[in-house]
Amino acid sequence: MIFHKNISEIKENKIDANGARGVSIITLIGEDHGAKNFVMRIMKIEKGGYSPYHEHVWEHENYILKGEGFLRTEKGKNSVKKGDIIYIPPNELHSYVNTGNEDLELICVIPLML
Amino acid sequence: MIFHKNISEIKENKIDANGARGVSIITLIGEDHGAKNFVMRIMKIEKGGYSPYHEHVWEHENYILKGEGFLRTEKGKNSVKKGDIIYIPPNELHSYVNTGNEDLELICVIPLML
Repeated sequence: MIFHKNISEIKENKIDANGARGVSIITLIGEDHGAKNFVMRIMKIEKGGYSPYHEHVWEHENYILKGEGFLRTEKGKNSVKKGDIIYIPPNELHSYVNTGNEDLELICVIPLML
Repeated sequence: MIFHKNISEIKENKIDANGARGVSIITLIGEDHGAKNFVMRIMKIEKGGYSPYHEHVWEHENYILKGEGFLRTEKGKNSVKKGDIIYIPPNELHSYVNTGNEDLELICVIPLML
């Protein structure tokens, strides 16, 4: 069945993980909506916030919708801004840091088989 | 390896399929960038344009970035606008039609195993 909603109707989940500050996740499309292979989420990072510097066995496909900041990896810091596309392979340490004056918002797609 | 580019650096591909009008696809992240499981694309439909009314064995996970129009399915027409989230399951007839005054732009994620 087709699932159709507006983002304003979807609950935002505050992430309360170690090493995270001001991060929320909105699950746009996941298992509950019929998805079988991958999950589309939006990650919002408040001004001054950051996602945990961590690694995991699944990849990220990211597209920056709004804001600016940097992506920290083992190779250093890389500026990111609206319109940027980032593929983070499995087992790669990463953290997004918001250094701008508004929310940093990005699409983050992950595989479902976790 | 991490892949990182801005959308302005990515080639837009005009879709020249039967039943399509004014449609382009930008492949943000795919096999060429290291992706193994799913492909993130942006579909742009010009004012007055539409994607083919078709079905296929793979699903779509869509997020409307800009514009307005409708989604045509076997159940009829449903208005879509910026911020809308749509999951189209496999084997479901669908077409997006731009009825607004600007481009209709949407994220469209599909599985890689086609």
